[in-house]
Amino acid sequence: MDNERIARASLSRLMEPQDAAGLALVKAAGAADALRIATGQLSAGPALEQEITALLADNGAGTSWAGIGAALKRWAPRIPDLAPERDLATMARLGGRLLVPSDDLWPAQLADLGIQEPICLWWRGLEQLLPGASRCVALVGSRDSTSYGASVTGDLAYSLAQRGFTVVSGGAYGIDAHAHRAALAGGSAAVPTIAVMAGGVDRFYPSGNEDLLRAVCNQGAVLAEVPPGSAPTRFRFLQRNRLIAALSAVTVVVEARWRSGALNTAHHAETLGRAVGAVPGSVHSANSAGCHRLLRDGGAVCVTDAGEIAELASPSGEALPETRAARAAEHDGLTLEDLILLDALPLRSTSSVDKLCTVAGLSQESVRAGLGRLGLLGLAVSERGGWKRSKASA
Amino acid sequence: MDNERIARASLSRLMEPQDAAGLALVKAAGAADALRIATGQLSAGPALEQEITALLADNGAGTSWAGIGAALKRWAPRIPDLAPERDLATMARLGGRLLVPSDDLWPAQLADLGIQEPICLWWRGLEQLLPGASRCVALVGSRDSTSYGASVTGDLAYSLAQRGFTVVSGGAYGIDAHAHRAALAGGSAAVPTIAVMAGGVDRFYPSGNEDLLRAVCNQGAVLAEVPPGSAPTRFRFLQRNRLIAALSAVTVVVEARWRSGALNTAHHAETLGRAVGAVPGSVHSANSAGCHRLLRDGGAVCVTDAGEIAELASPSGEALPETRAARAAEHDGLTLEDLILLDALPLRSTSSVDKLCTVAGLSQESVRAGLGRLGLLGLAVSERGGWKRSKASA
Repeated sequence: MDNERIARASLSRLMEPQDAAGLALVKAAGAADALRIATGQLSAGPALEQEITALLADNGAGTSWAGIGAALKRWAPRIPDLAPERDLATMARLGGRLLVPSDDLWPAQLADLGIQEPICLWWRGLEQLLPGASRCVALVGSRDSTSYGASVTGDLAYSLAQRGFTVVSGGAYGIDAHAHRAALAGGSAAVPTIAVMAGGVDRFYPSGNEDLLRAVCNQGAVLAEVPPGSAPTRFRFLQRNRLIAALSAVTVVVEARWRSGALNTAHHAETLGRAVGAVPGSVHSANSAGCHRLLRDGGAVCVTDAGEIAELASPSGEALPETRAARAAEHDGLTLEDLILLDALPLRSTSSVDKLCTVAGLSQESVRAGLGRLGLLGLAVSERGGWKRSKASA
Repeated sequence: MDNERIARASLSRLMEPQDAAGLALVKAAGAADALRIATGQLSAGPALEQEITALLADNGAGTSWAGIGAALKRWAPRIPDLAPERDLATMARLGGRLLVPSDDLWPAQLADLGIQEPICLWWRGLEQLLPGASRCVALVGSRDSTSYGASVTGDLAYSLAQRGFTVVSGGAYGIDAHAHRAALAGGSAAVPTIAVMAGGVDRFYPSGNEDLLRAVCNQGAVLAEVPPGSAPTRFRFLQRNRLIAALSAVTVVVEARWRSGALNTAHHAETLGRAVGAVPGSVHSANSAGCHRLLRDGGAVCVTDAGEIAELASPSGEALPETRAARAAEHDGLTLEDLILLDALPLRSTSSVDKLCTVAGLSQESVRAGLGRLGLLGLAVSERGGWKRSKASA
């Protein structure tokens, strides 16, 4: 077992997710020395402290975490709990592993998090390279989904998985569960779905999703940045959301209340410069109020089907949605005068050129030329010396 | 009967709505001379032709209407039909009148149409100044509305009318009818609702809306730019839409199919720099596809209630919607450390400071200070030497 792996396993137990001072320490000193400093076996020294302060400033991290002195006091109470070999053995027993950034399987898109990139990922599931961000879509939403939310999530996830996308979600009840389930059913990608958990992956939480999360493990992956045995606290849910956003090119909120954790995921995506989609719903549904809020605030694009989401994921046009406008109406492309003339043509009886001039308010020349053009287009027909609309144009 | 009124009444029969060359002629020569030129009693002359060409170019009008020569041929077939005194008598018999731009009652906001400002308005209803654009909202949508569209339109129109807005629509079946009806019911404004018709106002069209349009006349107004007896052709519907948009500060599309005339009204509003709102709906409803299209194209703001529409109409903030976010969650404003500490506090049993340090990953100082703050906020309570969450925070 290499030092780096042991060190990162330990650090992920000492530090809460997104402990900025800790993450900067790891970046500046390397994981092995960072662990020695964190556990008091090595002293940080002013040069390193300075480097950490600079790293935090560069990355716009808040100052509430800054200062190695405060951080050491924060980490100290957890030192007695460190048992990285035990944690790694637990993962091995569950058929899982620990991923560190130097691993081939490490999702490259997490580097976009900068200083907030997790120290490691505790990973259960396929030993399979996760596709790049452009092939991953996050579908998120409320736990208390409506039948509308369930049905839309199912359609979207199934259809995205059929198009070869990996559906990323949070393994919770409601929208998350519908997303994972439908992606498993539709999956044509190597990794059809991924669940990013707020607590340790040794336990499938919530327990009602145990069977589903087991299936996600078998065909995809279940992962977390916190070590086995960690409780899914509210703070960890909020931090977990940044991973869902960072893994995916697009974060789609399918159904969310005015205040909802799903909006937090959307804001993470926006901060990362990732696309955000929101599914519209009834204005009478409190479960769509959060989606409409995102649409109003201008941060989200209105998405109604998998094609539109695929377009957001690959804006180069490689996955353009089938255009519903393709079948143009018969009067498209007519000049103003010809449109007026078409309006003036009777449907049943016929009309003379003189009459058409009066009704349409057009000159003799315009009417004659226009009738010729409409005739060629199959929109007007001549009968018994007069003109009428063709049946096709009616 | 003044010359100007007679001339405009006549011109509105000779020319189709938005006949750019005709409108430019009226602007350049005045209505009386324009009529003389249009009817061949006066020659236009090269100076006037040049002025007209310049006017058309300045206003970005297409060239398909340009050229007085072509226009004269277009108008000629309708000269025998001119009978302005008869048209004005018809209006008087119906309790209506003809409005021209110099009238006090002329809606000032129509000037924003530039060269496309109508020549006149045939007006039935209250002899009452129409409120300025900032107090007018257009509610438009499909004729084949769903029960969802009907219910949302009713809520919006009633509530807007209650707030003193004038609800503008097109007098058609479906969304239009629901908008007029609910505005009449909720109306507290001097003019609760206005119907802008594509055909002549002598006939209430469609006939199924006759009673409704009569009620709109009694409490508001029914108007058109085409003279009595004019048929509501498709072309006139499209031109009529620009009047609905120009009268109103905001055009809201409540329900519309992927291709719908309501989208045409929205595009007119956008062109005029007016706000456009779209009401979201089920992604399964074809009747909301046009609204979602507007939201996707970025031209429309997602609106879900009358407050949000009022905000669009008066962006200065005079009509801010009641903020739904006012009741903040209990953990808003907590520092990261206090949030983590709150998560770590047990709900039923109590926990020691040492235990909280380990569970939360915080130093002794942070835990002690944080417990003090959470205690003051009523989120944590001390019991039998330990700490737990208060019932209020659960």
